Amino acid sequence: MPPPVAARWRLVASYVVPIDPPGAVWAPGVVDVAGDRIAYAGPSEGAPAFDGPVRQLPGIVLPGMVNSHGHSPMTLLRGVGDGLRLERWLAEAIWPREARLTPDDVYWGMTLGAAELLRNGVTSTCETYFHDRALLDAAVDAGLRCVVTPGILDLPARGARWRWQAMLEAALGLVEEQQGRAGLVRVGLGPHAPYSLPDEALAAVGRAACEGDLLLSIHLAETRREVEALRAERGCSPVAHLAGLGVLDAPVLAAHGVWLEEAELTTLAERGVAVAHCPQSNAKLGSGCAPLAALLRAGVTVGLGTDGPASNDDLDLFEELRLAGLLARALAEDPSVVEAPALLSLATLGGARALRLPAGRLAEGQLADLVHLEAEDPRLVPILRPEEVPARLVWSAASHLVRDVWVGGRQVVRDGEVLGVDLGRARREVQARAERLRG
Amino acid sequence: MPPPVAARWRLVASYVVPIDPPGAVWAPGVVDVAGDRIAYAGPSEGAPAFDGPVRQLPGIVLPGMVNSHGHSPMTLLRGVGDGLRLERWLAEAIWPREARLTPDDVYWGMTLGAAELLRNGVTSTCETYFHDRALLDAAVDAGLRCVVTPGILDLPARGARWRWQAMLEAALGLVEEQQGRAGLVRVGLGPHAPYSLPDEALAAVGRAACEGDLLLSIHLAETRREVEALRAERGCSPVAHLAGLGVLDAPVLAAHGVWLEEAELTTLAERGVAVAHCPQSNAKLGSGCAPLAALLRAGVTVGLGTDGPASNDDLDLFEELRLAGLLARALAEDPSVVEAPALLSLATLGGARALRLPAGRLAEGQLADLVHLEAEDPRLVPILRPEEVPARLVWSAASHLVRDVWVGGRQVVRDGEVLGVDLGRARREVQARAERLRG
Repeated sequence: MPPPVAARWRLVASYVVPIDPPGAVWAPGVVDVAGDRIAYAGPSEGAPAFDGPVRQLPGIVLPGMVNSHGHSPMTLLRGVGDGLRLERWLAEAIWPREARLTPDDVYWGMTLGAAELLRNGVTSTCETYFHDRALLDAAVDAGLRCVVTPGILDLPARGARWRWQAMLEAALGLVEEQQGRAGLVRVGLGPHAPYSLPDEALAAVGRAACEGDLLLSIHLAETRREVEALRAERGCSPVAHLAGLGVLDAPVLAAHGVWLEEAELTTLAERGVAVAHCPQSNAKLGSGCAPLAALLRAGVTVGLGTDGPASNDDLDLFEELRLAGLLARALAEDPSVVEAPALLSLATLGGARALRLPAGRLAEGQLADLVHLEAEDPRLVPILRPEEVPARLVWSAASHLVRDVWVGGRQVVRDGEVLGVDLGRARREVQARAERLRG
Repeated sequence: MPPPVAARWRLVASYVVPIDPPGAVWAPGVVDVAGDRIAYAGPSEGAPAFDGPVRQLPGIVLPGMVNSHGHSPMTLLRGVGDGLRLERWLAEAIWPREARLTPDDVYWGMTLGAAELLRNGVTSTCETYFHDRALLDAAVDAGLRCVVTPGILDLPARGARWRWQAMLEAALGLVEEQQGRAGLVRVGLGPHAPYSLPDEALAAVGRAACEGDLLLSIHLAETRREVEALRAERGCSPVAHLAGLGVLDAPVLAAHGVWLEEAELTTLAERGVAVAHCPQSNAKLGSGCAPLAALLRAGVTVGLGTDGPASNDDLDLFEELRLAGLLARALAEDPSVVEAPALLSLATLGGARALRLPAGRLAEGQLADLVHLEAEDPRLVPILRPEEVPARLVWSAASHLVRDVWVGGRQVVRDGEVLGVDLGRARREVQARAERLRG
């Protein structure tokens, strides 16, 4: 477990990037932390007097990054099935192995994943997987904030033992059980996708999410084939399908959205559906490129997601935000289509909004989830004006520049070391369990 | 200057990736170095007896990466002009500043760039810039192998003082002068592009390259507009234009090639023209995506390039090889279109062939340019079989895993530290000079 939290402390950094307002940089800037919240954030000049402990940081401070779509225990399956398209990849390489997972497998897979996320400056993650108690235990032990949306699947035709009724019931049991748990945990519902669940299941999960005001995370329009199959069978788009079943009445976070059409974007914006953009996984699996620029123009809330490390193959939002920007610019043949501050916002505030967390920006009352990067690395040199910092973070930085991370005011990474994880043990456990799963 | 070279030594590593044959991994493997060359490389089992000094390395060893297109002194202009398309970016943001560069500016810009390249596992770079003696001095001082192709431009309409005749003459003077220099340096010719040089200049540079058997590096088909303008003015494609002027009789390395058509690919393959694929720069400037899969299918020699850090904004071939693979897969909607060993080969052997260097693979007689990465980082875990190492390097690794680098048998990076560069001084010099240039 990470060390305890000081009641009230101040951080002063050469550059502080609050995310909101977009493009702002305080040089130097101040963040005051009280318990798990930010008590004050602003330029050093004009900051209130403070007589508690002060940490002077020579680099850049920004809000912790938010992973809006992950299956992080899949460190156990890192790189499995490379070269297969999503449909075959799931059916042949992934699901048969996932059916054999034990809770201990998930604990250790998530422990290694949590260490990787924290080390890379990610402080919150939305996880859809199996054996959710073990997953949450691993996240909490590492000190990572976790919104878990337990996976709900139903694939009788494939002979899989998953049945949606039992999985929904278990998920609702977890919701009740975790209500009293520490502040790092939230529970929602994770119906897998329109193609892996019957209509009645989607409708029932949607109703349960509405009734409990629970985040509903679902894979949506990830591949062209899946969308074409739905249109052929039902004569409607994926978004219309979910709307027709009442699913969009719930607070929905749709992952991927690669093959969304213009009219669907409008619906998503109007219905308050957020999208988790996962550019690396979509590209590696050959699924395509989600229409980021159009999503933002339509006013959809967009976060970034790593997806699982079997299709990525790492858990690094610095890579995702850069790739998101590069793809959007290359496809539009226009370098002005998305700017650095907007990309940085996707990885922080966009993700926090998608997960409905009071985080992702530095302001009074927000969660004290913070990241500190060194600014001495050659790849950040020169910085001539504070306003250049967002561009340097987006186009030049890399996750190894992360030195310190705090989640809810508690330090969880110090000088690049993840404090709450025995990395040697996590490595050995994952290696041994991966050998069993793939054998 | 880096430390001197042991006459003969052996390296033994847990995993050795020779690049050729594709996909091979020796676990453990051996590389014997004699002077600046590899004397033997192969699996530990069956290696010849050896009684000299032996280095045991716990991670992964591969050939040093080869940057086939760079303007590394542009660390001085990192990130300048973000949001502008190539044409305006060059004319408004870059050329006016480059016209004011001094040799000392280039020395320090290249010193910081060389440190970044070496730290990231790049052992050779092809550089087209200005003040080439200063550039070469910086590369040699850092211990980086450098093929310099001095920039040749002619833009009287823009009022620039560059004239092609004087620049060609100076470049040929440098060729003669450097012929006796240490093994790290080669000199070619770098005519900028068809749109920045008159026909007679392109033809004259092509003739000079043929006569001297000099590598001719040129920007080709980088933007849709440039290709459309040439077609409108001359009625031909960029490749046909260069072929008609005799330029393709020389050993040509064409950078970018974003807007090449199928027939041009065939010509490039037939004429032995190599392409430097620069996916990050092309995407960030909104130029587009080069047809990597089609280039490889056509049999064109392809290397990877960082381009300059004003349009990238870092010098990291791990990023380029991953982006190259992601773009190819996303655009083809096919994850089997390019596999990990082929991508790793672009960054090493493909680049070496493009630069006509005996490097980029581990075999007797090749240059002893070597990189050692740690394999303990969470993002590489698990590795279940040696054959997975190339995929882990392509889809999960990052440049910070580079621990040691040797160029021509001489160690230039030790435990992540660049031995031949005073990084503090390089940072201060670049910061101060960048302030003057941008002011």
